[in-house]
Amino acid sequence: MTDSWATFGADLHLELRGSGLRTGLMDALREAVRSGRLAPGTRLPSSRSLAADLGIARNTVADAYAELVAEGWLVAQQGSGTRVARRAVPRRPAGVARPRPARPGPEYNLRAGAPDLASFPRAEWLKAARRALATAPYEAFGYGDPRGRIELRTVLADYLARARGVYADPERVVVCSGFVHGLMLMAKVLRRRRAREVAVESYGLELHWNLLIEAGLRLRALPFGQQGSATGELGSLRAAGAVLLTPAHQFPMGVALHPDRRAAAVDWARATGGLILEDDYDGEFRYDRQPVGALQGLDPDRVVYLGTASKSLAPGLRLGWMVLPEDLVGEVLEAKGTVDWASGTLDQLTLAEFIASGAYDRHVRGMRLRYRRRRDQLVAALAERAPGISVSGIAAGLHAVLELPPGTEHSVVRSAAWQGLAVEGLSRYRHGDAAGRGRDALVVGYATPPDSAWTGALDALCRALP
Amino acid sequence: MTDSWATFGADLHLELRGSGLRTGLMDALREAVRSGRLAPGTRLPSSRSLAADLGIARNTVADAYAELVAEGWLVAQQGSGTRVARRAVPRRPAGVARPRPARPGPEYNLRAGAPDLASFPRAEWLKAARRALATAPYEAFGYGDPRGRIELRTVLADYLARARGVYADPERVVVCSGFVHGLMLMAKVLRRRRAREVAVESYGLELHWNLLIEAGLRLRALPFGQQGSATGELGSLRAAGAVLLTPAHQFPMGVALHPDRRAAAVDWARATGGLILEDDYDGEFRYDRQPVGALQGLDPDRVVYLGTASKSLAPGLRLGWMVLPEDLVGEVLEAKGTVDWASGTLDQLTLAEFIASGAYDRHVRGMRLRYRRRRDQLVAALAERAPGISVSGIAAGLHAVLELPPGTEHSVVRSAAWQGLAVEGLSRYRHGDAAGRGRDALVVGYATPPDSAWTGALDALCRALP
Repeated sequence: MTDSWATFGADLHLELRGSGLRTGLMDALREAVRSGRLAPGTRLPSSRSLAADLGIARNTVADAYAELVAEGWLVAQQGSGTRVARRAVPRRPAGVARPRPARPGPEYNLRAGAPDLASFPRAEWLKAARRALATAPYEAFGYGDPRGRIELRTVLADYLARARGVYADPERVVVCSGFVHGLMLMAKVLRRRRAREVAVESYGLELHWNLLIEAGLRLRALPFGQQGSATGELGSLRAAGAVLLTPAHQFPMGVALHPDRRAAAVDWARATGGLILEDDYDGEFRYDRQPVGALQGLDPDRVVYLGTASKSLAPGLRLGWMVLPEDLVGEVLEAKGTVDWASGTLDQLTLAEFIASGAYDRHVRGMRLRYRRRRDQLVAALAERAPGISVSGIAAGLHAVLELPPGTEHSVVRSAAWQGLAVEGLSRYRHGDAAGRGRDALVVGYATPPDSAWTGALDALCRALP
Repeated sequence: MTDSWATFGADLHLELRGSGLRTGLMDALREAVRSGRLAPGTRLPSSRSLAADLGIARNTVADAYAELVAEGWLVAQQGSGTRVARRAVPRRPAGVARPRPARPGPEYNLRAGAPDLASFPRAEWLKAARRALATAPYEAFGYGDPRGRIELRTVLADYLARARGVYADPERVVVCSGFVHGLMLMAKVLRRRRAREVAVESYGLELHWNLLIEAGLRLRALPFGQQGSATGELGSLRAAGAVLLTPAHQFPMGVALHPDRRAAAVDWARATGGLILEDDYDGEFRYDRQPVGALQGLDPDRVVYLGTASKSLAPGLRLGWMVLPEDLVGEVLEAKGTVDWASGTLDQLTLAEFIASGAYDRHVRGMRLRYRRRRDQLVAALAERAPGISVSGIAAGLHAVLELPPGTEHSVVRSAAWQGLAVEGLSRYRHGDAAGRGRDALVVGYATPPDSAWTGALDALCRALP
């Protein structure tokens, strides 16, 4: 016993430096029990004698004992002193997982789907946060309105009407934590409406498709052509309760949905009562002429508009928004739950300030210039170093599609990896049901790298091309 | 036609003041179509003549027409000019929902469940946000690690070990958006493990119970007594895969789970492979002696620890955390999804800075003093003005339970409402399966009102009591 206390005392001394005496003593006792140095059933020294050994007040020891009894580590019995509890013996797991050493990623990243994170407007965002914190009513720190903060919804309704031609009203805007969250909510609503099928585009993101499938919906892929997805064929899909589209800039093919096909989608929705889910992920970024406005404006009663700050600002903010047909608001809020557990109110208020002050417009304008310059550099580099490769989908957005000779996609992606470049082939975005053989192509996210890595990334890309 | 153009021109003029010429023209055209002033099929004036009418450049009009064609509002046909599209006629919904006038709430609020929102440490939080924004690597603005930012997980592991006796490791911490999110994730995991039943306490929150039920789990309520919930009866619940407990401070009854009952819960979990879900919602706030440490420390392999910033800081932050048994981490992350769509990284980094700098400890210490003072004032006011009412559950937390004469609970709650005071009866927190007749009592959240309303709230409460 004496020996084990000596060891214990040494540990204890170490512990005591970091925190209060009582806390330090409790930590040391817990650790001694955990490690097995104090076995179950072991009788502890009296508080008086341990206090004398350690040169601390008796009450400190007595308090620590009492708390460890309350927590279940020790048991105190009248007349038999304080003992280590019989069940307080969780062995330290053989191998506690340690933070894995960061895997060295590829040197360059041209995967599509992210903006240039190094350009996040930190100073402007902080200014907006300061204003938000200074002016927020105290109830803003409480459990929030499941629709999101009214300040943000009001600003968004105005911004979306102005910049995207969306027919919005703060009462029909619901804040969510990004497109994925919005799509999840819509999948839930569609299932409750007993929809069984959703039409999707032949090209898109597997993440979105899987989310719909997991919600219990079947998918049907619309044929894709030069005018965008063949919405004229929606009529032959009897069971489709909704169609998921990227009308302003097909992801990843990059075309804008042709006016006839926009019209056909709206006609279908009106005739069948179906819904159009409009994914307006990068609508703000169009270079050669003004942006194509949102489809939602054509029929706000049949289109669910989904937007996000993930491309215009940063995915890390986890902020998105839905503009809903009036009769859907209640259903979406029911799917969301009575408490807005998804989006912090401070970020919402900060974004509202950021938009209202004009900082959002300035940021988008600035990024549009930067991305356009990168796009031009990409096109120029390809013309010079890989003149056989044609580029498409470049009128807008943050990525381009590079046509490859048939059968070479896989080897080009691999060769890029050898160059330290992460980039993805078009096949990764192709739905399994899409008709015909897929084209070989690369999807190049030219917005992704920070400025410092852009030239190197472009160089690695050109080297990887046939 | 001339008349309608005159009207249109007037609107247009108004619109043009706010934004660019082209945008203003497009807005005015869309609005004219929407309102029906420009009927489907109507032929528009040539861009040349409209430009002359409005005194603007012809190209501006031509661009606006082209964009509205791309968006589907107009159609352009060779030889027949530009017309309003046939389907571009969504009537403005008869009654667009307007922001409802704020319903005047009750003057005073003593509902339990929220901290004093007026005491949110705005200046300190902004300082932490500034540091977070200044030091965040740019990848922090991207799609995050589904476990949450490593900076926050590291700081939390340290804090929870120090302040709550939790056996934590950053690799076993998963950030979530609050207790409800954490419970949702656990419900999903339990279902995937084919658990069918969860034992709950006889008193708790219906929101939590409903969430478990909606996930497909049956509930069984444990009898409640002076020593807390009767965990010794877990053995007779054959199908229970987990038990949900508030060991440090039963919500809302306010007792700490007796050491024997802590032990019994751990024994049950070890014997059956069941899980203990520890809801440590207000563990930091104990007044008359040091906090009771978390149950999790007794067996980190069988206890899922759930904590939150909702009581210690503010629910509006939407930040919580789980400390998981090692073999559960993968399952919880799978339930959470591959992308962390729930918690913004800036808030996570700010909280990490806030804790690491000591501001969190200072805030909790300061609030503990304030809440303790309020509790003492509540007890004193009752002793003086309602001496027949006994108070319990006051050693810790943000609320107290006021025992009422049998059969009076409902009328007291109503009488409080007449005094302009929102407060809830104990029956609201009682599970339907709880044995025996419920006691009549009030659950008084004395942390909820801002300082300015506290005296008034206390006064209204005393007037409402029998």
